[in-house]
Amino acid sequence: MKIRAAVAWEAKKPLVIEDIDLEGPKEGEVLLKMVATGVCHTDAYTLSGADPEGLFPCVLGHEGGAVVMEVGKGVTSVAEGDHVIPLYTPECGKCKFCTSGKTNLCQAIRSTQGKGLMPDGTSRFSKNGKTIYHYMGTSTFAEYTVLPEIAVAKINKEAPLDKVCLLGCGVTTGLGAVFNTAKVEPGSTVAVFGLGGIGLSVIQGAVIAKAKRIIAVDINESKFEFARQLGATDCVNPKKYDELVQNVIVDMTDGGVDYSFECVGNVNLMRSALECCHKGWGESIIIGVAGAGQEIATRPFQLVTGRVWRGTAFGGVKGRSQLPEYVEMYLRKEINVDDMVTYNLPFAKINEAFDLMHEGKSIRSVISLS
Amino acid sequence: MKIRAAVAWEAKKPLVIEDIDLEGPKEGEVLLKMVATGVCHTDAYTLSGADPEGLFPCVLGHEGGAVVMEVGKGVTSVAEGDHVIPLYTPECGKCKFCTSGKTNLCQAIRSTQGKGLMPDGTSRFSKNGKTIYHYMGTSTFAEYTVLPEIAVAKINKEAPLDKVCLLGCGVTTGLGAVFNTAKVEPGSTVAVFGLGGIGLSVIQGAVIAKAKRIIAVDINESKFEFARQLGATDCVNPKKYDELVQNVIVDMTDGGVDYSFECVGNVNLMRSALECCHKGWGESIIIGVAGAGQEIATRPFQLVTGRVWRGTAFGGVKGRSQLPEYVEMYLRKEINVDDMVTYNLPFAKINEAFDLMHEGKSIRSVISLS
Repeated sequence: MKIRAAVAWEAKKPLVIEDIDLEGPKEGEVLLKMVATGVCHTDAYTLSGADPEGLFPCVLGHEGGAVVMEVGKGVTSVAEGDHVIPLYTPECGKCKFCTSGKTNLCQAIRSTQGKGLMPDGTSRFSKNGKTIYHYMGTSTFAEYTVLPEIAVAKINKEAPLDKVCLLGCGVTTGLGAVFNTAKVEPGSTVAVFGLGGIGLSVIQGAVIAKAKRIIAVDINESKFEFARQLGATDCVNPKKYDELVQNVIVDMTDGGVDYSFECVGNVNLMRSALECCHKGWGESIIIGVAGAGQEIATRPFQLVTGRVWRGTAFGGVKGRSQLPEYVEMYLRKEINVDDMVTYNLPFAKINEAFDLMHEGKSIRSVISLS
Repeated sequence: MKIRAAVAWEAKKPLVIEDIDLEGPKEGEVLLKMVATGVCHTDAYTLSGADPEGLFPCVLGHEGGAVVMEVGKGVTSVAEGDHVIPLYTPECGKCKFCTSGKTNLCQAIRSTQGKGLMPDGTSRFSKNGKTIYHYMGTSTFAEYTVLPEIAVAKINKEAPLDKVCLLGCGVTTGLGAVFNTAKVEPGSTVAVFGLGGIGLSVIQGAVIAKAKRIIAVDINESKFEFARQLGATDCVNPKKYDELVQNVIVDMTDGGVDYSFECVGNVNLMRSALECCHKGWGESIIIGVAGAGQEIATRPFQLVTGRVWRGTAFGGVKGRSQLPEYVEMYLRKEINVDDMVTYNLPFAKINEAFDLMHEGKSIRSVISLS
């Protein structure tokens, strides 16, 4: 079928919205009509050319809300008309990772996904016979897309897709990092580095987890007001201090925080996040994605004296079995997603969403696709 | 009183056994007669001058077995004649750390201990009026020593002090890292980097924890036989491979180990230990003490994909409340400490113990002090 998609023909160039070809779903796959998609820093990272795994041409996008239009042979868990969120971390339920009980990092289709292909090793997208690659197994910057059945989470139809699409990445990642990775306890002290969609979601998660003190850190002070509205108790701009921000936070907290979260992807900030943790038990969670080849460093003494360094992908959330409950949390108004949508834009203006993000003027722009 | 002690007058010089002055125990302190002491790499590290916190002159030693000779005012938990192990990590039971339930790193006397002094800010050791510093709050290289009450663990008198002195550091550190820090589960796969006293104790702990595979790593193959006797299932000499040892271990284990332990103090090996862990859940525990100013590094992707980087000091063991049970494990023959004592030497030959350690010819030398 002919569909409209925003094609990234090459790195560093604006996306081009045009008609391309989409092959229907094969065995174990589903055809989705995308209703809305968020635009995330990871899309921009790949488009910038800095992502060593980036493949062009491709259809970017991984934060979507969609309706199932057709299912391929053998698909049993979703049906036409179901509302779903595409999952860049699928859940097959059968692999060593899914059955470990220790991680959400299903590896069932990792190798083909990393090559921009469906599990059978081919792409469903093309133009004039030329292959266009999938991206993160999701490619939500298109009116229609094809995904493996194991990479869609069926959600409550009452949830507005132009809001809960953000649960396809940033919101779930932030909440899950608090609930699954850090397991923040009531009364904890928390520091959040970076107040984008993920950092703000960490703040919301920390509030739900009953943290008593939530320190929000950003160099863009325009983010502080909303952070406070969501529950941050302190806001710190590292540029206002001569000292390293980790020392500022250690001083503020009589020894450091119980949990810290790096939501930017800056390796120096990852170090600060670790070193602002309390001796003996503080745990730091890396959420942000650093540039290719960059490394984190610290003195091992930081760990020997009891700090723990962790990371998380998609907040440790198993998409098919756990994401639907996050949508229910939204419907119960336990989390505020609506106010994270700074701009609603039509598909034609998708490149503006990237500009707004780069200018720090949006938490998230949501693109309407139908 | 006049006592004999091995004094480290300055860095890089042999210890000198001579008569020095020891003041009796003040309030909250106890006088110990040392029966035996191990010689550990940390003593050698400080003696080398590389330890930025090293103070000279001092009485080194921190792996001791002793008998209480006299107690100061207010001491209630131990009495004359009790057998004790000195604790470089004390347990006051009252500070924020002791009461956290999350760490063994009691900070009650940290600041004075770091300055080579007793909690009242003075030293008990001197010679001709010149202060000689305490070391790690223990100073076991002396016939008699004074310690705070909170820094001695009362143990079963049936335990031979010239063996269980090793539970004052290396053995407990290795076992505790397995039980308290990693919490190794039955069926786990484990890698142990460095087969000294700590690494061999990690192996013993992993056997008790019912690990199904224990990979011992060292560049000194003469260590392999004893490692196998204790329970190592595989022995790896990194020098025998062109590839990085982490890749060798990942290949051996179909994806990496569940837990790894760095027992050397080499920052490159710490990276290898982290990176040989299984994606999704592998945890690496740093035990070794790195040189001053050295840093560990890795790509943050290692953590984002589920590996966890931890460290441990004294194996996370609370000395006064938990160490006595480790001594009972020894008495029940659940752990082999006897065979870790490669040499028994008289006090006069203490410098030889350092030589044997540097030459890789000993696991531990134990010095008899009475």
